[in-house]
Amino acid sequence: MQNFDFFNPTRIVFGAGRTGELDGLIPAEARVLVLFGGGSVRQNGTLDEVKAALGARHVVEFGGIEPNPTFETLMRAVAVIAVEKLDFLLAVGGGSVLDGTKFVAAAACFDGNPRDILAKFGRNVEQALPIGTVLTLPATGSEMNNGGVITIKAEGAKLPFSSPAVFPRFSLLDPTRTNSLPERQLANGVVDAYVHVMEQYLTTCAGAHVQDRFSEGLLLTLIEHGPAAVKSSDYQARANLMWTATLALNGLIGAGVAQDWSTHMIGHELTVKFDIDHARTLAVVLPAMMQVRREAKRDKLLQYADRVWGVTAGSDDERIDAAIARTRAFFESLGLPTRLSAYGIGADAIPAIVAQLEAHGMVKLGESREVTPTVSRQVLEAAL
Amino acid sequence: MQNFDFFNPTRIVFGAGRTGELDGLIPAEARVLVLFGGGSVRQNGTLDEVKAALGARHVVEFGGIEPNPTFETLMRAVAVIAVEKLDFLLAVGGGSVLDGTKFVAAAACFDGNPRDILAKFGRNVEQALPIGTVLTLPATGSEMNNGGVITIKAEGAKLPFSSPAVFPRFSLLDPTRTNSLPERQLANGVVDAYVHVMEQYLTTCAGAHVQDRFSEGLLLTLIEHGPAAVKSSDYQARANLMWTATLALNGLIGAGVAQDWSTHMIGHELTVKFDIDHARTLAVVLPAMMQVRREAKRDKLLQYADRVWGVTAGSDDERIDAAIARTRAFFESLGLPTRLSAYGIGADAIPAIVAQLEAHGMVKLGESREVTPTVSRQVLEAAL
Repeated sequence: MQNFDFFNPTRIVFGAGRTGELDGLIPAEARVLVLFGGGSVRQNGTLDEVKAALGARHVVEFGGIEPNPTFETLMRAVAVIAVEKLDFLLAVGGGSVLDGTKFVAAAACFDGNPRDILAKFGRNVEQALPIGTVLTLPATGSEMNNGGVITIKAEGAKLPFSSPAVFPRFSLLDPTRTNSLPERQLANGVVDAYVHVMEQYLTTCAGAHVQDRFSEGLLLTLIEHGPAAVKSSDYQARANLMWTATLALNGLIGAGVAQDWSTHMIGHELTVKFDIDHARTLAVVLPAMMQVRREAKRDKLLQYADRVWGVTAGSDDERIDAAIARTRAFFESLGLPTRLSAYGIGADAIPAIVAQLEAHGMVKLGESREVTPTVSRQVLEAAL
Repeated sequence: MQNFDFFNPTRIVFGAGRTGELDGLIPAEARVLVLFGGGSVRQNGTLDEVKAALGARHVVEFGGIEPNPTFETLMRAVAVIAVEKLDFLLAVGGGSVLDGTKFVAAAACFDGNPRDILAKFGRNVEQALPIGTVLTLPATGSEMNNGGVITIKAEGAKLPFSSPAVFPRFSLLDPTRTNSLPERQLANGVVDAYVHVMEQYLTTCAGAHVQDRFSEGLLLTLIEHGPAAVKSSDYQARANLMWTATLALNGLIGAGVAQDWSTHMIGHELTVKFDIDHARTLAVVLPAMMQVRREAKRDKLLQYADRVWGVTAGSDDERIDAAIARTRAFFESLGLPTRLSAYGIGADAIPAIVAQLEAHGMVKLGESREVTPTVSRQVLEAAL
């Protein structure tokens, strides 16, 4: 186990029928900006419920945050905050709305050009407006962590940032809020959470036994109960998916272990360039990454094969092959393709994707910083 | 999964050689009371290191907190705080010192007689002095939760309390601090953490799949790595024990599930009456509790047998018997007896123990409040 700091002050309020508690969670005198996405929360009644709970507070709405939230849109929210003198941000939506709200919270207090926040990956963020969230889509874990990913449309860049200042004060997790979601978004959520775990688990065997067991527990839960949560709106299935997705990226399983994240960084470039859903890029990149980096990840791949997939027969290499195949089959069973060809992307596109990685400084990725542009190219080739 | 709130703002600073960071964790102008136990931290140098890190701050020492911290001793610390006008408490020790410090923190700010805090189990605590901890013994989880257990010597009572106000601001977890511990205390720590998990896990099958997997992961880690952590001072073994014990009782695995705690409440009476180490009382009570409540806990006992002990052969009852036997054997292998007779306690002592439970209001214990004095008597009889 490596040395680590763990700190996560977000209050989780979990369960159906608790939206009214917003009134006690937000200061009575707060002037609130409610941020949301494409408008589904308006149609399904969530926004009305939220506004009712906010009572007589001064509330301004800001809709239109995109699935990959853009710097350009978010800076308009920052302008609204200044004009309306708002002091509390309430994000109502999925990971994109939450990520975007975190950026707005930091940008509204930032001394300088908020573009610089992304240049420094958030290390220069010292304060932020307080944030609460009402989660509608289990997937990214943004409801209980201090990070986000922002797209700069003008630059064709999708960049991560994090800061302790943007932890949500609270997140309201009501599994029934997922009832109006399309199957595709739920399936994406299962895979997103799965790959979040893998980025923190499938690295080196560091002797961090608890973290390994927790990661394996999250993966097993997603495998055993994720498909049911996609196919039916059964409360328990949705509750398990929601809490699993939160725990997959709240700092817990990543404390004291090496972390990878190269699959995410390559995936981001695919989203920017081809507008493929975030989780769908991960489903394509991860199996190829496992294949290309199988030597560096050998011990953990064998542990993964055994404990997560129950693969115990065959040589080491056969067991690793089986674990990669099972992973790929799981993603495909949820309707997520695992090949670039499914998106009409061929070998000719690879140089431009690698050039993007280089342009964004993503040249030494992975737990050992071994994922150079050359390795990224191999991964993309293996994903064809 | 039941509705739940989860909130845990304690900052964990984990790893060897980090004591110097205390300087950045405690306000520069703080007037600090350093609380500790029997003096081993003075002998092994921990106290000197801590005081060096505190630099020029005004520091007062308060030693002598007992293994089961007493109201009487702790009220003397409260008096010192008033006289010296102290405003920050730093606990250096194991669970008893930490529990005691939490009580002192609350009592120092309490409007009324602090005895009333225990009468209301802490529900009447509204504020407390800020607390930091330097943990020396992995066991109780007190370093990352908001509860404690206090003994009132004059009344022969051992009572739990909790309040959000007494979460430590930070806890410094350095596995090498355990190097000077006797084997007995480490073995006690493994069993204490194990039973903490069981109190939150071995209840009903509530469909909380993640919580189940996490609990099983903690139990498996204790089984697989606990004995090595007791026998050797290997850093990784101790690090895993330390972090496992913290996670066993920081609110995480208990969120959204039924909880039992009847083993603890009966165990407390054994400590009060016979001065048996806390963990040792649990090792005696738990196997008997599993036996007596096997019908109510049947489904979870079968899951436990399968996933934790790999017991898959035999009838349901045979597998449950095997799981109980394996649990008992595990405790015994660590040197903790699992029978009252090992302490010279016979059937004649049982009525008085049951009377104590009744006197302390412990008359409807367990996840379904079914552990009446009659059931407690059966448990004690099964533990003879």
